[in-house]
This record gives sequence, C-alpha cells and structure tokens, in this order.
Amino acid sequence: MDATAHAAHTAATGASGAMPEPAVDPVELVRQLALEARQAARVLARLSAASRDQALLAMAAALRAHGPRILQANAQDVARARATGLSKALLDRLYLDEARLERMARGLEQVASLADPLGEVVRAWRRPNGLEIAQVRVPLGVVGVIYEARPDVTADAAGLCIKSGNAVVLRGGSEALATNLAIADALRQAATSAGVPAGAIAAVPTADRAAAVAMMQARGLLDLLIPRGGAELIRTVVEQARVPVIETGVGNCHIYLDASAPYEMAEAIVLNAKVQRPSVCNAVETLLVHQAWAERHLPRLADRLVEHGVEIRGCPRTRRYVPQARPATEADWETEYLDLILAVRVVDDLEAAIDHIARYGTGHSEAIVTSDLASARRFTREVDAAAVYVNASTRFTDGGQFGFGAEIGISTQKLHARGPMGLEALTTTRYVVVGDGQVRT
Amino acid sequence: MDATAHAAHTAATGASGAMPEPAVDPVELVRQLALEARQAARVLARLSAASRDQALLAMAAALRAHGPRILQANAQDVARARATGLSKALLDRLYLDEARLERMARGLEQVASLADPLGEVVRAWRRPNGLEIAQVRVPLGVVGVIYEARPDVTADAAGLCIKSGNAVVLRGGSEALATNLAIADALRQAATSAGVPAGAIAAVPTADRAAAVAMMQARGLLDLLIPRGGAELIRTVVEQARVPVIETGVGNCHIYLDASAPYEMAEAIVLNAKVQRPSVCNAVETLLVHQAWAERHLPRLADRLVEHGVEIRGCPRTRRYVPQARPATEADWETEYLDLILAVRVVDDLEAAIDHIARYGTGHSEAIVTSDLASARRFTREVDAAAVYVNASTRFTDGGQFGFGAEIGISTQKLHARGPMGLEALTTTRYVVVGDGQVRT
Repeated sequence: MDATAHAAHTAATGASGAMPEPAVDPVELVRQLALEARQAARVLARLSAASRDQALLAMAAALRAHGPRILQANAQDVARARATGLSKALLDRLYLDEARLERMARGLEQVASLADPLGEVVRAWRRPNGLEIAQVRVPLGVVGVIYEARPDVTADAAGLCIKSGNAVVLRGGSEALATNLAIADALRQAATSAGVPAGAIAAVPTADRAAAVAMMQARGLLDLLIPRGGAELIRTVVEQARVPVIETGVGNCHIYLDASAPYEMAEAIVLNAKVQRPSVCNAVETLLVHQAWAERHLPRLADRLVEHGVEIRGCPRTRRYVPQARPATEADWETEYLDLILAVRVVDDLEAAIDHIARYGTGHSEAIVTSDLASARRFTREVDAAAVYVNASTRFTDGGQFGFGAEIGISTQKLHARGPMGLEALTTTRYVVVGDGQVRT
Repeated sequence: MDATAHAAHTAATGASGAMPEPAVDPVELVRQLALEARQAARVLARLSAASRDQALLAMAAALRAHGPRILQANAQDVARARATGLSKALLDRLYLDEARLERMARGLEQVASLADPLGEVVRAWRRPNGLEIAQVRVPLGVVGVIYEARPDVTADAAGLCIKSGNAVVLRGGSEALATNLAIADALRQAATSAGVPAGAIAAVPTADRAAAVAMMQARGLLDLLIPRGGAELIRTVVEQARVPVIETGVGNCHIYLDASAPYEMAEAIVLNAKVQRPSVCNAVETLLVHQAWAERHLPRLADRLVEHGVEIRGCPRTRRYVPQARPATEADWETEYLDLILAVRVVDDLEAAIDHIARYGTGHSEAIVTSDLASARRFTREVDAAAVYVNASTRFTDGGQFGFGAEIGISTQKLHARGPMGLEALTTTRYVVVGDGQVRT
C-alpha cells in the first residue's frame, strides 16, 4: 500500500472512530489500491497452497483476537444506521456479535480445509507435431467485490480470494464501512504474517459512490467484478462496468406442480421454498399449477400457505379455487417479492408452464414436482436456468448445499460460472505449450 | 423472422443489387432479429446432434449451390470498396472466389464431423440428503458476433453456433454487407431444411452503426457478444456493451531469448513468429533478449530479420549490437504492429523479461526459448497469458493448431474461455438436481 492510500486507510480506521474522510480523490484511491492489488496478485500466485492455508488460519485467529475492536466499530455503524432510520431487517444484517464473528472465523478455517483449486491440469494432450499442450488452472488475478450490508461478506470474500490465489478489492455498503474496514485490517495484518502481500486484501476506505464507479471502470486492473446485492446494485454495475462482471442473485424462481404431483410432497416443497426464508434469492416467487392438480388440491394448499402467513396473488382460474386471493397483475409474474407473498397461476399443461418460465424467469432456480418421468425429463431439458429441480426445494441453490464448501455468490448469467460459485469460479486457465523448436508452416 | 425484418432482409439482398436501405429503425430491427433468435434458440436446443449435423452439411452444400449469387454479391462489395479506396490488404480479405467458398464449405463439413459438445455431464454427485446433482453442458442461447471484413467469418460463426445449439446474430463489416447477407441467406435456407428455425441464423441487414450498438445493449436477448476485429472495435464494444462480452484477439506478444537459448532454434522461432504472417494477433511484436545471448548472437539474428524485410526498433543496448536499428520509444513496447516491424530490448535476466511482459503484454501469447529447465518452469508459472510457450512459435495459438477443429476467436480475457475458443466456449452448464421431496432445514 502506498503512503497516500495507507494514510487514508489509517484515517478511516483509526482509534478516533471518526467517519472516514479520505483527503484523496476516491477515483485515484481506487486506482492505487487496484494497482497494489495487481502487484500483490503476482506474488500471491506464486505462494504455495500451504502458505495460503496458513494465511487463512491466521486470518481466522485475527478475527477472534481483534474481536473487541471489530465489535466496537460495528456498534458505531449500528448506532449511525439506527439514527438514519435503517429498517429492522437491514439492521439485523449489519449487526455483529461474538457468535457471528466466531461463525466468520470458522468459515475461514473451513475454506482453509478445502482442496487447493490451483495448479490442476484440466486436460493435456500432444499434437501430431509433438507440441505438448496443458490447460492449467491459475488464479484470475484481482477480484473486485461490491456488496451491501452483511459485513460477513468481507471475511468470506477475502478468504475465498486468498485461497484461490487472487488479490481482492472489497467495497461494502456505506452503513457497514467502519465494520468492514476493521475486519479487513485484521485480516490483512494476519495474512501478511504468512507471506501474503498487504496489497492483496484491500478495502475501499470511503463510502463515496465515485469509488464504486471507479472499480467498475478499472479496465486492466480488475479481472473480475462481482456485485452482491439487490437488483438496483446489479443494474448499476452492468450499466457502468467496463471490466468483466458476473451478475449474481436476482431470482424470480418458479415451482410447477404437475398433474401427477403427490400432494404431500408438493406441499412440503412449496412451503419450504416460500416460507423457510423468504428474503433470499432461491425462495419461490410464483407457483404454476396444472389445472387438474388445482381442481383437486389447490384450495387445501392455499389454506396451508395462508396459515403460514403467505399472501396469495392469483390468476382468475386460481381465484376460482382460492377466493380470498388478490388478483395477480402482470407485475406479479415479474416480481421477486423476497417476502411472504406468492403469485399463483393455473396452467393448462407442462408446455404452458415452461413458456411462463421462459418469459418471466431470471434463470436462477426452477422446480417441478411430479411423479411422471416424461414430465421430469422434459422440464429439465427445456427449462433454461442455473439450477433445475425435480422434486426438491429451490432453496438448495447454494454453494454450501451443493457441497462446494463455500460460495462467493450465485451466478445468474451463463458465462464462466453459472449457479453457486465456489473456489473454481475464482480461477481461470492458462495453456502451457512445450515444444522443441516447433514453428508453424 | 417477422414481416418487417423479413422485408428489410429481402430489400437488402434482392436481385436488384441495390444497397440495403431498410425502412425500419435499426434498433428495432435488431430487437426483432434477437427476439426471433431467442425463440429459435429454444427449438434449436432441443434438436438432436444428428439434425444439427445434417443442417451443417446442408449449409455446406448451399454455399456451393448458391456460389454464383454469393460471388456476384461479393463482386459488388469489392467494386464499391475499391471505389472508396479500401487498402489492398483489406480488399484481399474481402475478396471471395470459388476456392475460398469451397474452403468455407469444407469448414462447415469439418465442424459437422466434430463431437457434439452438448449433453456432456461435466460432473455429477450425490449429496448426503440424497439429492443427485449433475452439471450438464447446454447451449448458451443466442450468440452475437460483430466482425470486420472477412466474409468467411459469416459461415464459420454460423456453423459453430448451430453445431453448439445456439442461435446467432451476425453483424459483419459494412464493406462486406452484400456478401455476408448472401452467405447468411444461403445458410439459413439450407438449415431450415434440417429443422433449424429460420430465426436461428440472423444477419443484420444494415450497415448502420446504430444496429451494432443495439446488439451491444440487447440485455436479456444476447447471452454472449463476441467482437472480432481491431483494437478500436473491441474498445467500442467493451465501452458500450451491456451484455456479456468475450474480448478477442489483441496480441502484443513477446518472445524471450534466455541466456541458454540455442541459436538455431531461437532464429527459427523468431522468424516464424514475426515473418510467416505478420498481420495476425499471434505474431510476435517484441523480442526480449538476455544480455549474454545478445552479446553472442543478436547481430546475426538481426541480420536474418533484416534479410526478411523486418524493421528493427531497439533499446539503447540493442542498438549497440544492431546499429542500423531505429531507437525504440515507449510506444514501441506498447504497440501491436501487425506488420514487419519488431521491437527489441536487451534485458538483464529472466526476471526483467517477466516484468516487461507483465507491464506491456496483453495476455495473449508469450514464449521463452531456453535450454534451462528452471527458466522454463519459472516462465510458465509466472507469465500470465492465455498461452505460454516453451521453445515453440507463438503462431500456434489457434483453434485449429490446438486441435479444436474450429475456432470462433481467441479470448484474451480470463472469464469463461481463455485462448482459442472452440465449440465448448459456446456452451454453458446447467445444474440438474433430482430428489424425492427434499426440503431445506
């Protein structure tokens, strides 16, 4: 870290507890941090897996050792956020205590225990002219992450990036600034003790939006930018970015109840996908119901949903079975509620369900409940989404649930990584070609 | 294709030979083509490999059958281009004859003979809760290609997209408009005979730049946009694009001659990489020479380069050995000449060479010539490029030379695909998760 950036850092995280007021231009500040991250990435890419794991364990220990300072910074953030009237849900996401810090530390230890994603020879072959070509897994270089609230992302993202040999530039939400900087400081100090250059874990020490935009436009400095947050953040990043982006998370997810869907299974899956945690991207937002199933079972299922506090918005046919449902409008088919609201549409058949999903889905998670093999096969072949489910809840779209051990986000685009992104999504490959003087004729 | 777009198409390619003047707004035209491509992609994704291969063979036959019409359109383009003073090199890239058409047709037949990239189960596993997760290879959906001159890209790109189950929206250079539309018409007619929907092969029937920009901003309609052309085109696409992009091709490639480089091998590789085809992205642009090697061999190598018509621009130390070299400026280290010009720098050691490449390289192809194992290992580990060579010419960075059978471009970015992009680069994956009622707890 150069003197200017470092001074800004210290100002932002000093014992005074004052709000950060970096004297330097935020665009220049981001450029400096990214340049240092680039230098750091070259060193990091050469570190052994053992050194990277040692850094992760030291980072976990530092979260515990620096706990009081981090919680103090968090208390300041929470007090400020409360004063500005942040919603209770967002306050809860911002709030840290010892148990949450401990969970972050254990997360880093778990990442340390995962297999090294680097150096894998993805494939290798020999050409007729004797050239030997190997495709080798290597780090991306510098990863930028722009996120909102949830300070645990600071530790998660830093941990996944260090494990995968990448430098990281973190830019959290303004309401969590002091917390994020305190966490990043602790992680950075610990990581350097294991040979990781200080520039490899950078946290942007200002809430100025110009700094976030500077990250989006840091051509040649960031190899990947991951926005984690609401639809608005993701839209802004996609519009302003000049660096490669992976879009995460918007999930307008559907469950289709086929004519043959067993009632008990359908009820369990729909309730789980809607009620267990409605605020997340893999919760279901629209239920599509085969007309024959609706005739037999929809009133009963609707009663169960209402018992669980779910508001139903239905198409005209739905309202024949569920008179208390509010009429659904076009906007309901398009909306990711992230709340205890469910749009319900009765459809003629599987084809109509697939068409509805093709039109309104966001390519996140889509499920069918059925006991008919042909329906299951057609649904999984024709529905285009990151994760397509047969007889399971959409809530499983998650790096941990998939067994990846950790996750840096859920990609809803089709390039590079699709669905839950684990360590491999933070790598690229390089072709290493070895010959003995071959030239092209 | 809807009536409007179809009318514009006919206007653009009609027997009258008039320059296309579509009556409709180019932005709306692109939107219509992309929407139809999206519909077509859903059908295409369901076609069997046999049907897609049959379409490719029909497309090859159509290039031969429609040869006279295509060559007539090309003659118009060439005449127009000559009148506007297009350079001889570009005229040569634009020009088609029967031999070149035949090569395009054979290219399609070769793509037909490659293995189907779709349906591969990349990996599959069972979770402790009994969920079975399979990662399955599927098409991207709709691929946009914006390219310059070279009408053979029209057939190549269409062929690779159909083979990989994708619809394609093609936008070639204005100087090749009549040729490209004639080729696309022939391909489209042929493909429909094998069950491919007409909308799956779309060529934008206007040279209006607004149409190209509309492709860059077709959020939700294009799953991938590939620009193929000069640095200026790629910069424009990166700045304007709101859809996922893979950057191709800019190659400021280096060869480093290590102290231990055998002279004959070094000479053969440098001459091949500079002289055999200087206008392409995998040609070498800067030669880095270890000081000890320079002392012994650089004058002789420079003589050979000059004999082959190469202009040398050297650093001060180079000019001690090669007095006739022009002094190199900072701009020379940054320039992709694409011409018979070579920048030469004498460096102290391998580390200085790696630093130079880290600073000026574009991450395309970088080579070392050496007989020292430690140097080779260090170079391949530390140089960050799509292809890193030991003792071979950089000219091998090419889908054909790598054995991919075909290539839709060479990616110089790190996401999704890096280096030569074959069929697999035109696919994504989908997680298919099958359970028997699992819910998340």
